[in-house]
Amino acid sequence: MPYTIEKVKELVREYPDFPSEGILFRDIFPIFHHPEAVECLINHFVELIKALNKQVDVIVGLDARGFLFGPLIAIKLGVSFVPVRKRGKLPGQLVSVTYMKEYGPDVFEMQADGIKAGQNVVIVDDLLATGGSCKAAEDLVAQMKGNVILNTFVISLVGLEGDKKLKAPVYTLIKC
Amino acid sequence: MPYTIEKVKELVREYPDFPSEGILFRDIFPIFHHPEAVECLINHFVELIKALNKQVDVIVGLDARGFLFGPLIAIKLGVSFVPVRKRGKLPGQLVSVTYMKEYGPDVFEMQADGIKAGQNVVIVDDLLATGGSCKAAEDLVAQMKGNVILNTFVISLVGLEGDKKLKAPVYTLIKC
Repeated sequence: MPYTIEKVKELVREYPDFPSEGILFRDIFPIFHHPEAVECLINHFVELIKALNKQVDVIVGLDARGFLFGPLIAIKLGVSFVPVRKRGKLPGQLVSVTYMKEYGPDVFEMQADGIKAGQNVVIVDDLLATGGSCKAAEDLVAQMKGNVILNTFVISLVGLEGDKKLKAPVYTLIKC
Repeated sequence: MPYTIEKVKELVREYPDFPSEGILFRDIFPIFHHPEAVECLINHFVELIKALNKQVDVIVGLDARGFLFGPLIAIKLGVSFVPVRKRGKLPGQLVSVTYMKEYGPDVFEMQADGIKAGQNVVIVDDLLATGGSCKAAEDLVAQMKGNVILNTFVISLVGLEGDKKLKAPVYTLIKC
């Protein structure tokens, strides 16, 4: 069955009080039960990125759910995919940034050869909440003198105003 | 530049003494700097799976690096992708298995609607080491009465004999 992007949105499931009371969790994994839905979602992001009319050199994806989308988008665009991971998971020369979370600091890292000065970057993740991890990714790209031209998310929780933390424009498919 | 699978193998980088002394870490992320190399790798796995001449219903990928490959393989085959994650990351009705690691137990989970009884499953991960996490994935699939028909890895550390823990056949691109 061919999917429209509106049909893809309907596949996201809501779970009240997960992972803790008062949190409404949105689950994107049902999209992955339907390969045509994943294709539709990826094509949607690819068309959006192409419509910027800018050279894109690198897709950056955040561990772990950004890994689901990032390589698919990168292949369709014919560009590189580079991960952001928490401290201790990536070998070699790294750039790193410390990011304050609710319960203390967290460190994000990227491999230093992932982005060359002047390259244009699109950051991909499933969810924009407070924006902390995406801001950390923007900072890492800036350390390598790359330019973030867009941050893309499947879902954003607009009440948390995560987009205000970010320097580059934000595109979100589903605003809650 | 078109890649051969031998060229793709050469992109894997080795880092001695990471993450700790005496460990030789193999880094698959350089493959993702080259979209044609990723395509070649995915096509290699897809052809291998098709050569089984069996119906495949679900690709199961392990968090986090199995997320890089799993959705790409699933889309090419036109089948579902379902994740295995550590405890607390997936909402809804779950199946779970406890797996003993060096420093204590770890719990892996899958969503209970991910696999239907009788479905054929291929498990995908980047690395086969002791086989514990892949065995956990096999156990989860068995709880849902699915059949694992193949476990596929980019790299396996043959000295650790992880394949002896697994019930289904194992395919590995790079044996170290």
